[in-house]
Amino acid sequence: MFFEGAEKKLEIIVSKEHQPLYEKPESFWKELVEQCEATILSSVRNEKQVAFLLSESSLFVWDDRLLMLTCGQTKLIKSAEFFIEAFGRDSVDCLFFQRKNEYRSHLQTSDFIQDAKILGNLMDGAALRLGKMHSHHTQLFHTTSAYEPIASDRTCELLMYDMAPEVISFLTREDLTKEEIRNFFQFERLLPNFELDDFVFQPYGYSLNGIRGEDYFTVHVTPQETSPYISFETNLRICEKSQVLLHQILEILRPFSFDVMTFNCSTEFDFGETYLKTIHVQDKLDIGYDVHFRYYNQKTDKPEKVYRYKELI
Amino acid sequence: MFFEGAEKKLEIIVSKEHQPLYEKPESFWKELVEQCEATILSSVRNEKQVAFLLSESSLFVWDDRLLMLTCGQTKLIKSAEFFIEAFGRDSVDCLFFQRKNEYRSHLQTSDFIQDAKILGNLMDGAALRLGKMHSHHTQLFHTTSAYEPIASDRTCELLMYDMAPEVISFLTREDLTKEEIRNFFQFERLLPNFELDDFVFQPYGYSLNGIRGEDYFTVHVTPQETSPYISFETNLRICEKSQVLLHQILEILRPFSFDVMTFNCSTEFDFGETYLKTIHVQDKLDIGYDVHFRYYNQKTDKPEKVYRYKELI
Repeated sequence: MFFEGAEKKLEIIVSKEHQPLYEKPESFWKELVEQCEATILSSVRNEKQVAFLLSESSLFVWDDRLLMLTCGQTKLIKSAEFFIEAFGRDSVDCLFFQRKNEYRSHLQTSDFIQDAKILGNLMDGAALRLGKMHSHHTQLFHTTSAYEPIASDRTCELLMYDMAPEVISFLTREDLTKEEIRNFFQFERLLPNFELDDFVFQPYGYSLNGIRGEDYFTVHVTPQETSPYISFETNLRICEKSQVLLHQILEILRPFSFDVMTFNCSTEFDFGETYLKTIHVQDKLDIGYDVHFRYYNQKTDKPEKVYRYKELI
Repeated sequence: MFFEGAEKKLEIIVSKEHQPLYEKPESFWKELVEQCEATILSSVRNEKQVAFLLSESSLFVWDDRLLMLTCGQTKLIKSAEFFIEAFGRDSVDCLFFQRKNEYRSHLQTSDFIQDAKILGNLMDGAALRLGKMHSHHTQLFHTTSAYEPIASDRTCELLMYDMAPEVISFLTREDLTKEEIRNFFQFERLLPNFELDDFVFQPYGYSLNGIRGEDYFTVHVTPQETSPYISFETNLRICEKSQVLLHQILEILRPFSFDVMTFNCSTEFDFGETYLKTIHVQDKLDIGYDVHFRYYNQKTDKPEKVYRYKELI
């Protein structure tokens, strides 16, 4: 069965009078999540943030902002509309809404342009495509009202496709425990001292939120053989400090290809000989964000065989 | 405006008692074409075949077979059903139905699996994917009844994406004549002695059929800036004899990436340093066809800027 793993993503930064945002009651977040037809599975919190694990991905809420990722056929635009209506347009200092190119877009209930038009009717904004129409790309709506991002506001997304066969066969085992998956990813070693909250889906699939002070990372695994996909996202200073973490993740998962999308991370990545950078878009948005979208893939040595659809005939 | 240039493709080979197929009256082909919501614009014929230029691509009919390519939102599966109903299932010795991955599949009226199930209910067949789910791929339904292709039965498709900016700006000029486009492609030099039939669409876009004895080639140009695409297909012995023709076409159009799909062409292609082969699928179908699907793309040197949607806000 095909599952559209690629997440839709919403980030909203609110004005001073609505902070701290994470003190809103859980009933509000529950309602926000229900709008897009997902549900809250569990949550963890510390003094800086609360992180909800969802039936389709994640919601993080800090003092001044929220970040929501949802996959599959969820209607994230509905959650965006609900939030803007509940808080009022003037409460929003900055908003990003992002959708990756989908390979089964006919299974979605809207397309990016439709979503962007809804947002554009609610507030001044611009809509962009980063990447090639005929290859990997992501699409981004952002508000255009004057805004200056805070120094710690950075994001790195690593979106991995078609992991090595051994990785797929491990992750599609139907009896995996949280502990086995945590060990496989080596979270304790790579990202120490995070408080973790994770969930194993049936028959397979895995989601994890990790929080440490204001830092977060989140991992979502859809290992389905027709469309294996794993996303990793964090606000850690991996871009400025070192690329080691991304290299380590790639060594474990060995994808055929991956995207790296960054906001306010200036370092050039180098993934060696194995991966070729075939797409690179870079731009500076008027509202102070330096955005990069990169797509890397392996070269092909020997031909593969065809994939035979089992569901048919 | 987005236009899904990637063609759907139907090939049907009929049994002896239905040959010569090209002698069917034009009214039949007109009705066949109408099923998929395209129309016939013009035609050329010789002693071996008749070639129709369509409002969305092409239809070729020979002694023993037809080949139909349609792009945009056409419903090619309807033409397939119409043909099978008109001739009867037993008249079909072999059938192929092919769809390229689409980047706006929600604008289509069906997906490949739905189409393949319709065909699978009419005759024994198999459905395959060639290529990566998360990158370029094509999907193929073929009948599985015993069949032996004739020696001259070979096909090469060259599907090109994101041509060089100068090429796009030439092909999106709104006052181009057939002659200017023919000269630009250098058809007379590259493919001499073909009888040509072509059409310039408004505001731009171009289709051409060329025939010479049993040989054909066809070119379809959708130069729209959001999704520039040009397809070339032929049954010439370019694979066995030489790759020069493909190199010449690539030199003229300089796409960012392209697919090469072949049936019964055994030669290895070499496109030099400019293009990297990132996907290669090869298989031998039980019904005697050696199929290859290859995807090549350029490496990226310097970052591009984002693409800003003009239709929005």
